[in-house]
Amino acid sequence: MKPSIAVHGGSGTLPSSITDAKIRIMYLNALQEALDEGFNSLKSNASALEAVTKAVCILEDSELFNAGKGSVFTSKGDHEMDASLMDGKTLQAGAVAGIKGIRNPILFAKDILHNSDFVFLAGVEAIEFARQRGYKFLPQSYFYNQHRYDQWQELKGTGEVKLDHSHKDESTFGTVGAVAVDNDGNIAAATSTGGMTNKSWGRIGDSPLIGAGTYANNKTCAVSCTGYGEYFIRGVIAYDVSCRMEYGGVNLELAAENSVNNRLKNIGGEGGLIAVDAKGNISMPFNTEGMYRGMKNDRTSFTKIA
Amino acid sequence: MKPSIAVHGGSGTLPSSITDAKIRIMYLNALQEALDEGFNSLKSNASALEAVTKAVCILEDSELFNAGKGSVFTSKGDHEMDASLMDGKTLQAGAVAGIKGIRNPILFAKDILHNSDFVFLAGVEAIEFARQRGYKFLPQSYFYNQHRYDQWQELKGTGEVKLDHSHKDESTFGTVGAVAVDNDGNIAAATSTGGMTNKSWGRIGDSPLIGAGTYANNKTCAVSCTGYGEYFIRGVIAYDVSCRMEYGGVNLELAAENSVNNRLKNIGGEGGLIAVDAKGNISMPFNTEGMYRGMKNDRTSFTKIA
Repeated sequence: MKPSIAVHGGSGTLPSSITDAKIRIMYLNALQEALDEGFNSLKSNASALEAVTKAVCILEDSELFNAGKGSVFTSKGDHEMDASLMDGKTLQAGAVAGIKGIRNPILFAKDILHNSDFVFLAGVEAIEFARQRGYKFLPQSYFYNQHRYDQWQELKGTGEVKLDHSHKDESTFGTVGAVAVDNDGNIAAATSTGGMTNKSWGRIGDSPLIGAGTYANNKTCAVSCTGYGEYFIRGVIAYDVSCRMEYGGVNLELAAENSVNNRLKNIGGEGGLIAVDAKGNISMPFNTEGMYRGMKNDRTSFTKIA
Repeated sequence: MKPSIAVHGGSGTLPSSITDAKIRIMYLNALQEALDEGFNSLKSNASALEAVTKAVCILEDSELFNAGKGSVFTSKGDHEMDASLMDGKTLQAGAVAGIKGIRNPILFAKDILHNSDFVFLAGVEAIEFARQRGYKFLPQSYFYNQHRYDQWQELKGTGEVKLDHSHKDESTFGTVGAVAVDNDGNIAAATSTGGMTNKSWGRIGDSPLIGAGTYANNKTCAVSCTGYGEYFIRGVIAYDVSCRMEYGGVNLELAAENSVNNRLKNIGGEGGLIAVDAKGNISMPFNTEGMYRGMKNDRTSFTKIA
């Protein structure tokens, strides 16, 4: 079942608009486009790392998901993005947090993986580094989206004193990610997000954290998570799947299921993940109402929401 | 063996000054003070979380270690600090990165654990949050130290184009941490650091990352790491110890040894960790020349360097 790829576009409570078939098809088409892009590159002998990056770029460029172009508004009315990826062959990783103005944060994370001795860069100084490396900075208008703006207006001001994200809006439904195995049996994972609507205080979620939101190791699996970030951090969920396989000796399916429906659920966490192993097995468990997701290999291809 | 506490003050290549008995005693005394503070509070029925926080505060207040007062200089000549802690009873966690001007970053991390819905805050907005919560901001002079300044002068300018930390100075020797088990058998871990001398681009190391530099779970162990941060991130080392126990069924000693001398070493990582389990067993493996460390319970108490 090599090569093989899976993508997600977030998990959570389904927005009411999803009952509209036209809307559903828009989402499914975007997922399909990401799958096709990633899978085609795998068929042309691209590495898993390359394929997951390409798939995530497609999802970052869509305004449907909360990542890249579609990123939600922070409490200050701008867009802060986080991303990370990991190469299961080398165990190398790259991650960014609090990035503004860059079209594809996942490309910046990949740049860090390849071209720096560091793994994780954040904030204004990371943006300065991107500038020095020649990244183009897009105007705020590139990230503008009426729907996201309206979401923000609803929450604006509510979190100014207390850190509060009890308003579980659709923004949790939108982090994107991809996992893949290439022709050589190497695996990789990538995750990208625009965070939470009205987020403040420089909050960092699980998406840019290796072990929490993203992990890959040829010996076990590649994992990309989506959901309520704080619980994925406390559960170290991405690496938890890997450890269940490596130390517990269970297969991908059981490991992924237990991470989501035991480890995560037991601490009250909501969300899901996509995972692949070096043989091309894919698992996509979630404990929420839905998870935008899809997978593709030479035998099977599908996209799903609920 | 309850209550029990262990502390570390960093691992790495021993500085040449350590051959001086007076210098050695200064370090050992500082570790002892942290142990005493933490252990006394445990004996007075404080929680493990409280005890590790108190022990880390002592080490942050010492100018000997690269954390709090003794934090190294960044490429811009200021001091950016990272810290995190985790409660093994509740699996709650708090973490901060890129904090400036606050005397005890670990107290801020604890504040986040208790008083916010978020786990991890970073950068200028996190500093803004601290200001709103009434933290006192100290002048840069509080963090000034001639030795640290000289270390920075040696490196200043060298990393301005390339991300490069091939200069393995003593700054890797200085992250501090504590792990403890209290009378109730609850465990906790805390880690605090001033990062790397001349660090730039908003680099975040393992210290503030739950799973990488810090982890605690009553079912398994509490862990605080120290060393070359990027490798601890890629190895998800703190949680790796826990998973070896939980899924692999090995004891604390074997789990900690394997995490440091297999998982970490196999990817080229240098460093060490301190770990405790709910029964009060303590393990302190490292694969470097030395690790400032110590432990204390009702039967044993020691501090060591090499």
